[in-house]
Amino acid sequence: MGKGTLHRLEPRIYNYTFGPNDPALTVKSGDTVVAPTRDAGGFNEKMEPMPEEMKQHSVSTLLCERNPQVGPVYVDGAEPGDTLAVTIQRIKLNRDYAWSRHRSHFGSLTGESPGKQLFLNDPIPEAKFDWQLDLKKNTGTLELKSSRQKRIEIPLHPFLGSIGVAPRFGRIETSLVPGEFGGNMDCIETREGTVLYLPVWVRGAYFSFGDVHAAQGDGELCGVALETTAEVTVKLDVVKGKSIDWPRLEDETHIMTTGSGQPLMDCVRIATVELVKWLVDDYSFEKWEAFQVISQVGTFRIGNVVDPNYTVVAKFPKKYLPA
Amino acid sequence: MGKGTLHRLEPRIYNYTFGPNDPALTVKSGDTVVAPTRDAGGFNEKMEPMPEEMKQHSVSTLLCERNPQVGPVYVDGAEPGDTLAVTIQRIKLNRDYAWSRHRSHFGSLTGESPGKQLFLNDPIPEAKFDWQLDLKKNTGTLELKSSRQKRIEIPLHPFLGSIGVAPRFGRIETSLVPGEFGGNMDCIETREGTVLYLPVWVRGAYFSFGDVHAAQGDGELCGVALETTAEVTVKLDVVKGKSIDWPRLEDETHIMTTGSGQPLMDCVRIATVELVKWLVDDYSFEKWEAFQVISQVGTFRIGNVVDPNYTVVAKFPKKYLPA
Repeated sequence: MGKGTLHRLEPRIYNYTFGPNDPALTVKSGDTVVAPTRDAGGFNEKMEPMPEEMKQHSVSTLLCERNPQVGPVYVDGAEPGDTLAVTIQRIKLNRDYAWSRHRSHFGSLTGESPGKQLFLNDPIPEAKFDWQLDLKKNTGTLELKSSRQKRIEIPLHPFLGSIGVAPRFGRIETSLVPGEFGGNMDCIETREGTVLYLPVWVRGAYFSFGDVHAAQGDGELCGVALETTAEVTVKLDVVKGKSIDWPRLEDETHIMTTGSGQPLMDCVRIATVELVKWLVDDYSFEKWEAFQVISQVGTFRIGNVVDPNYTVVAKFPKKYLPA
Repeated sequence: MGKGTLHRLEPRIYNYTFGPNDPALTVKSGDTVVAPTRDAGGFNEKMEPMPEEMKQHSVSTLLCERNPQVGPVYVDGAEPGDTLAVTIQRIKLNRDYAWSRHRSHFGSLTGESPGKQLFLNDPIPEAKFDWQLDLKKNTGTLELKSSRQKRIEIPLHPFLGSIGVAPRFGRIETSLVPGEFGGNMDCIETREGTVLYLPVWVRGAYFSFGDVHAAQGDGELCGVALETTAEVTVKLDVVKGKSIDWPRLEDETHIMTTGSGQPLMDCVRIATVELVKWLVDDYSFEKWEAFQVISQVGTFRIGNVVDPNYTVVAKFPKKYLPA
């Protein structure tokens, strides 16, 4: 693959969709891209809102202006049936502030969303939460004015809420949705040091990322994490002729598969089947022995239960892989 | 509560239901019970099958002979509206062998079960897996005859698959089902050192336990864990006038709530709402600040996705509780 070129990308447009949008940059396999993200609301590292001219616009519809994405990056030589290996080299937080909020018809405690109201009881009250980030100590602090516990300080673990490629079958998906193309998985595993494997569905892959979270619990229950910005560095490698059906991840200790969809149980099933397939195809496990071992040592993490599709990550410890 | 009495219980009957069965023992609040469990198939620590005379029988129906339970223990003074605090003091494995298996119409990859066949494709092939337990090293070993990884050795973490009281509203439930009464939650958290809080629905509580697992992954995917036996010691304390709606747990690091049901998302929701209520009622959190904090530092564990109800455990780190 060679050493590759380092590209600094200063986005002129941030996109609200995953799909074959105009490429912001074309790279070769082995290249590295560094770029600043905007937060889920479009604010930059100085808390300046997104200028109109930097927003993706459509001639035919109003886009949902959430989770603006850096990119897409067109990866030369990436063809349908290949895999794009994305090494998340660095997520350098660059703002001492993150927001979270409760939206009336959004989050895990309601199946509601704009255009889909199900309940007659009062909605969740709107609320905004200002988290102060100490980037030196790597902590976030929230004042809890109405609770006996007046203040909470938590460790940060920055990750990319959204990261993906153009979907298959010619689909275009909003940056709020996770799926077989990655997207808004909201999984803490897409952090520094992780290699994310994405299926290539469209020539050039059209790789995008954004929506940095400084921290988040399992499931992103309230629908919103510690929303902030970062300078992000990713290395892109095309694995020719290797085809996968769903995003996979790898870090120092685990190989991991993802499943996105509804109901939540289907996420568990997809991730399980993908994990069995991975152990069989790449590690010479017999299928049912793989299933048995996963049943006893595998773990799941619920990435989100608030997006239009939920996401679950299934994990298998590398220490049980053949040498 | 006083020091309490230690009762050694040598069961004459093992029950296949949670409900007001004939008490095996009556204790007072503060007492401790130690008893041997049978494995999920009814075998004892010598792998001897259950004699007919030790099985629960019904005059009117055939019971499902799985997960035989020790008890019930009638707790004097426990009344509906109280809480039973169960301190799991010891789970002493006493067999060097555990079995697991794949059943054709059972487990996470099928919604099928006896009497509920949904698919025309071939069922999962039947398979049995013999795990050798080294109780000194606290490890389990499985030979993988058909995989390149010929053998797997994993650490053991014994826990009670089933533990609960008689259900509410006069219901009787089988020992395969988890619910508001505890039951077959298959959660790794019901292990040594955990305090399990169970709602008392029926005078005397009718506390039972069994189905020891030597180890298990999240979700108990194949439907079966490392099934074995143990000598179990539990201390029972009645918390008078304290009423809860679902089982709760506490260990050194976390307070935890459970939700059991289907779909899986409802387990997440129940456990979340219960966790918010706990933080509000006992730790003086304001409701929406509690929800925000749980959203950012709370975690979930999927106990099982194979029982007639699934179970999820929501966890909140004690370090964020007021002093």
